[in-house]
Amino acid sequence: MPLSPEQSAEIEALRSQSAQTLRATVPGMEAHLYKAFPVLDHGFVRVIDYMGDDAAICQAARVSYGKGTKSVQNDEGLIRYLMRHWHSTPFEMCELKLHVKLPVFVARQWIRHRTANVNEYSARYSILDREFYIPAPEHLAAQSEVNNQGRGQALEGEEAARVLDYLKADSMRAYDHYEEMISTEGQQGLARELARMNLPANIYTQWYWKVDLHNLLHFLRLRADSHAQYEIRVYAEEMCKIVADWVPFAFKAFEDYRMGGATLSATALDCVRRMLAGESVTKENSGMSAGEWREFQAVLSE
Amino acid sequence: MPLSPEQSAEIEALRSQSAQTLRATVPGMEAHLYKAFPVLDHGFVRVIDYMGDDAAICQAARVSYGKGTKSVQNDEGLIRYLMRHWHSTPFEMCELKLHVKLPVFVARQWIRHRTANVNEYSARYSILDREFYIPAPEHLAAQSEVNNQGRGQALEGEEAARVLDYLKADSMRAYDHYEEMISTEGQQGLARELARMNLPANIYTQWYWKVDLHNLLHFLRLRADSHAQYEIRVYAEEMCKIVADWVPFAFKAFEDYRMGGATLSATALDCVRRMLAGESVTKENSGMSAGEWREFQAVLSE
Amino acid sequence: MPLSPEQSAEIEALRSQSAQTLRATVPGMEAHLYKAFPVLDHGFVRVIDYMGDDAAICQAARVSYGKGTKSVQNDEGLIRYLMRHWHSTPFEMCELKLHVKLPVFVARQWIRHRTANVNEYSARYSILDREFYIPAPEHLAAQSEVNNQGRGQALEGEEAARVLDYLKADSMRAYDHYEEMISTEGQQGLARELARMNLPANIYTQWYWKVDLHNLLHFLRLRADSHAQYEIRVYAEEMCKIVADWVPFAFKAFEDYRMGGATLSATALDCVRRMLAGESVTKENSGMSAGEWREFQAVLSE
Amino acid sequence: MPLSPEQSAEIEALRSQSAQTLRATVPGMEAHLYKAFPVLDHGFVRVIDYMGDDAAICQAARVSYGKGTKSVQNDEGLIRYLMRHWHSTPFEMCELKLHVKLPVFVARQWIRHRTANVNEYSARYSILDREFYIPAPEHLAAQSEVNNQGRGQALEGEEAARVLDYLKADSMRAYDHYEEMISTEGQQGLARELARMNLPANIYTQWYWKVDLHNLLHFLRLRADSHAQYEIRVYAEEMCKIVADWVPFAFKAFEDYRMGGATLSATALDCVRRMLAGESVTKENSGMSAGEWREFQAVLSE
Repeated sequence: MPLSPEQSAEIEALRSQSAQTLRATVPGMEAHLYKAFPVLDHGFVRVIDYMGDDAAICQAARVSYGKGTKSVQNDEGLIRYLMRHWHSTPFEMCELKLHVKLPVFVARQWIRHRTANVNEYSARYSILDREFYIPAPEHLAAQSEVNNQGRGQALEGEEAARVLDYLKADSMRAYDHYEEMISTEGQQGLARELARMNLPANIYTQWYWKVDLHNLLHFLRLRADSHAQYEIRVYAEEMCKIVADWVPFAFKAFEDYRMGGATLSATALDCVRRMLAGESVTKENSGMSAGEWREFQAVLSE
Repeated sequence: MPLSPEQSAEIEALRSQSAQTLRATVPGMEAHLYKAFPVLDHGFVRVIDYMGDDAAICQAARVSYGKGTKSVQNDEGLIRYLMRHWHSTPFEMCELKLHVKLPVFVARQWIRHRTANVNEYSARYSILDREFYIPAPEHLAAQSEVNNQGRGQALEGEEAARVLDYLKADSMRAYDHYEEMISTEGQQGLARELARMNLPANIYTQWYWKVDLHNLLHFLRLRADSHAQYEIRVYAEEMCKIVADWVPFAFKAFEDYRMGGATLSATALDCVRRMLAGESVTKENSGMSAGEWREFQAVLSE
Repeated sequence: MPLSPEQSAEIEALRSQSAQTLRATVPGMEAHLYKAFPVLDHGFVRVIDYMGDDAAICQAARVSYGKGTKSVQNDEGLIRYLMRHWHSTPFEMCELKLHVKLPVFVARQWIRHRTANVNEYSARYSILDREFYIPAPEHLAAQSEVNNQGRGQALEGEEAARVLDYLKADSMRAYDHYEEMISTEGQQGLARELARMNLPANIYTQWYWKVDLHNLLHFLRLRADSHAQYEIRVYAEEMCKIVADWVPFAFKAFEDYRMGGATLSATALDCVRRMLAGESVTKENSGMSAGEWREFQAVLSE
Repeated sequence: MPLSPEQSAEIEALRSQSAQTLRATVPGMEAHLYKAFPVLDHGFVRVIDYMGDDAAICQAARVSYGKGTKSVQNDEGLIRYLMRHWHSTPFEMCELKLHVKLPVFVARQWIRHRTANVNEYSARYSILDREFYIPAPEHLAAQSEVNNQGRGQALEGEEAARVLDYLKADSMRAYDHYEEMISTEGQQGLARELARMNLPANIYTQWYWKVDLHNLLHFLRLRADSHAQYEIRVYAEEMCKIVADWVPFAFKAFEDYRMGGATLSATALDCVRRMLAGESVTKENSGMSAGEWREFQAVLSE
C-alpha cells in the first residue's frame, strides 16, 4: 500500500473541501480527484487538477463566446472531425495535472516526452524512501529472441528465483549503504546529492506532471501501445481510464483513430487497392521489405 | 462596446451555471470568469478558465500529497525564494486560458511567444467583422527621433487629422471591397482565404490563448514594460490585474524581482562597488559603452 | 524579380567564399546555398545553412562514435524503420535554416508551427517595401461550395477583373498613405509601429526560419498537402525539393509513409478486412459517418 | 581513458575527411570536431556538428541577404545590445550538436532542460558498459549544514574510505548481477529492459544532445554556476570553453551580462540608491528577508 496514514489524511482533507466554481466541471473527474490509483507494487497515479472538458475543445475550435456548440451530438461530430484531420490546437485547450509515483527507470522513459511540465522530488534536497520495484513473477520476462527491444516468456524455476534474489538483495544493500553514508551519527555524513548515486533504477521517485490533452494523447498512443515496456504501459493504461472519464468524446475518437487505427504507406495502400481488385499480392510483388510486409499482414488480420 | 446582445447572453448563461468542485478555487478569479474586460476601442480580454493558485505552486515545488505548505506565511516565503532563484517549473503548474480580441498587428507581436496554446478565429473559414483599431488622438504618436523602435509625442493639428482620415477611410474601403469580393450575389464570389488579404493589420481578430504562469509572467515582463508598444502593453496591463487577483503572492514577487528589478552586468556591479567605496565613477572610467552607461544611470536614478 | 542588384551581389559574395570543414556536408545543398528560389510573384526561399545529412540521422539513432552505419544500404533501411515507427528524435538531429520572403497572410499561417526559430523583419524598426502579392488569374479562385475552408474554380470575366482591380488599387493606395504618414518632410511623421497597421495582409514580409527535420517534415505533411491553401503550398513544394536534395533517404521514406500514406481508423481497418473477406461493405453498414465514408472511398480509389 | 582503440579510430576517420563548404565556418570549432574532451573519470564531451557563428546572430537579427553587418566591431556591439535587452531569437539561430558521456544521475538533472533534442543510448536495446563514476577523494563531500541542497568539506579518513568502498563494491556487484541476469548461457536470460533496473545511478550513459545557442547559454548560466552540483558543473565548464571558441562575442557578452551579472529586485535597487545617497542601510531597514539580505551583501562584496 503506497500511502502512509498521514498522506491518506492529507488526501481526505483535500477531498472534504468543496467550493463553488463557474468553470467547466466534470463529475467523473471530481470523483477521481486526489485519490491514489495503485500501479505496480508501490506506484500510483493521482489526479491533482484538470482544466476543460469535451465542450471546451469545441469552444476553442470555434473561438466562441459561450459553450462550443449547442448540442451534445454536434460536439461529438466536431471532435471526431478534428481528431481525424490531425487538428491539434483545440485538444491543447484541456490540461491535466497528475501526481505520479514511479520507478526511476520508468521516469527516464517518461521524461522523453518533453512537452509537459514536471516537478520531481529532489534527491539532492531530500532523502528518498526505501521503496523499490520488484516485478511480480509473471512479469519477470526473458529477453525476446526476435526483438532486441522486447521481452519474451516469463522466467521460470531457479533462474526466476535467482533474479528475484539479486534484485531484492541489491536494492536493500544499496539502500542500507545509502542510509549509512548520509547518516550524521558519529561522522560528517555524505552529501545527499552524492549518496543518491548508489541507488539502483528500480527505486521509486515521484513527480507532479502537467500536460495538455493533445500531448497526453500522443504519450498514450506510444505508451499504452502493446510494444511499450510493461512497466510504463500500466501507467498509461491507468491514465487511459482517467481520460475516458474526463473527455469521453475525445477519448472515443482517440481509440478509433489512433489506438485502433493504423497508418498505411503509399506502398501498402497500393497493395490494398490491388487486393480489392482481385490481384494476388505476395511479399515478393508487394514492394515491401520483410519487416513492412510482416507488419502489413498483422494490420490486415488483427 | 465590443459585445453583441447575443454574445452577452452567452456570457451570462455561463456565469449563471455554478457547480461544486474539489479543485483549487480562487474567488477573485471566479468573479472575473467569462466577463469581457475592454481594451483599446474594440478589443477585450476574457478569463475562460484557470488551473491552480498560489498554494498549487508550493504543492508542486514540494511534491506534496496535500496542499503545499501548512501556513500562508510559508507559502509566500517559498514563492519569493523560487522567484528569486529563477525556479521555473513550480510556476508552470498554474495555467490560464483567455479569450482575447485584438488587432492583427498586435496579434503578430503576441504570437512570437511560442510556448502557449492558440486557437485563432479562421478567416479562411469564416467572415471577419467590420472592426478596426483607430488610435485615440493622444496615442497617435510620432516616430521617436532617438529610438528607431519607439514613438515620441502625439501628432497635432492637420497632420493628426490627415492620419486619422487615412486610417479610417482605408479601413472602410478595404472592408467594403472585402465584402463585395466575397459576395455571391450575381457572381461566384472570391474565396474567403483570398479575400482576407485585402484587409489591413488594424482589423480585429480573436483567439483562445492558454499559457502557464511561468511563460505568462515572461510575456508580461516584456509586454507590460514601458518600452513595449502601447497597443500590446494595454493588454498586458489588463492581464497583470487578472494575475494579481489569481496568484497574489506570485504576482507580488514578480513585481519586486522582475518588473521593478534590473539585471546589472559584471561591469555595472563593479561600478556600484567602486561608487560605494567612494570612488568617482564616470562614463569614461566605467568600462561601459554609451548605451550601457545611459541605461545604468537610469537604473540608479529611477 | 525579387532581388535588387545589391542583394544579388551580397549573395554572390557569400557563394564565392568556400572553406574547409570536417562537418557532414551535402553537395546537393551546397549547390542551393544562399540562392533565392522564386515563389509566388515576389517571394522566395533561400537556404542559409544546414546541419546533418542522412548519415547523421543514423549516427544519432545509434549514438555512435563515428558515422551511423557502415553501409549506405543499412542507412536507408534504418531510416525507413525509424520513420515507419514514428521515431522522432533522430530526425531532430538535422537542422535547416531558411530565409523566406512571403505575404503576411501566409506568414500568419506558417507561424502556427511553433517548434521553430524565427527572426522576422521588423516593421516597428524598419520601413516595409512596396511589394504585394497579386494572384495570377488562374489562382483567383472562387469560394468552394462544399468546403467552407477551400476554393473552387477560378473567377472569370468582369468579376475577375474587378477583384484584381480592388486588390491592386487598395494595395497601392494603402502604401501611398503609409509612405505619406511616416514621411518627415514638413511634418512630424507617424511612428512606424503605427503606420504599418494601414498595410493589407498581401504585403510581403521576410524572416529567417530555422527548424529541425522532424518538425519540418510535419510542416510539409500539412502544408504540401492538396488541402493546404495554394499560397502556402507553393512554399512547401519548393521546400520539398530542397529536402529531397538534402536528405534523400529520409525524404523518400517521408513520401512513402507520410505524404502518400493514410491513417485508417479502427472502423476503416475493419471495413478493409471485411471487404478482403468478400463482404459487400456499404456506407450504411460501414459504421462510418458520411464524411468518413467519403474520405475512405477517396483513399481506396486514389 | 574513455575511448577504445576502435572508437578512437572512428574519430580519426571522421577527422581525416575534409570537404569544401559555403556555410559559415569557425576554425576554432573545426579544431574541436569529434574529439573527446574528458570530464569526470569516464565521461566526455564531443562536438559533432555546429551551425552558425557570431556573424550569423547579426545576420538573423537584421534579416539580411548577406552577412549580418559590415564590420566586426558592429557585430560585437549588436550582439552585446541583443544580450543586454534579452533578445532571444537571434541567438536561437546558432545550433550545437554534442555527444556526451555522463553518469545517469547527471543525465537526470540535465534532461530537465527540455528545449533540446536528445538521443540516448538505449539500455532496452543494448547492453551498458561496466563504467561507474567514483568521485575523486577531494570531491567526496559532506552534506552542507547550511544548505539542504549543497555540500560542505570533503570527507576524511575512515569515513571517506568506507564511502568509497561502498560505492565501488555496490557498483561492481550490481554490474556482476546485471551480466549474470542477462546471460543466455544455460538459461533464458532476463530482458535487458528489466535487468537495467539493477544498475545504480553512477553508471555512465551517453547521448547525442542538440541545442540552440540561446537555450545552451541558459543551461550554462544555471549549470556552470557555483551553486550547481559539481558533477554537472564540470560538463558545463567544458562546454563554456567550447562556446568561447565558437561564438567569442556572444560568449563574452554572456559572461558580462549573465554569468558575472546579477538581478537586483526593486527593493535591492532602492537600497543601492539610498546607500549611494549616503544613507546607512541595514538589514533591519532594508525591507529584505534574511536570505535576501545575505544574497544582496554577497553581490555587493564579490
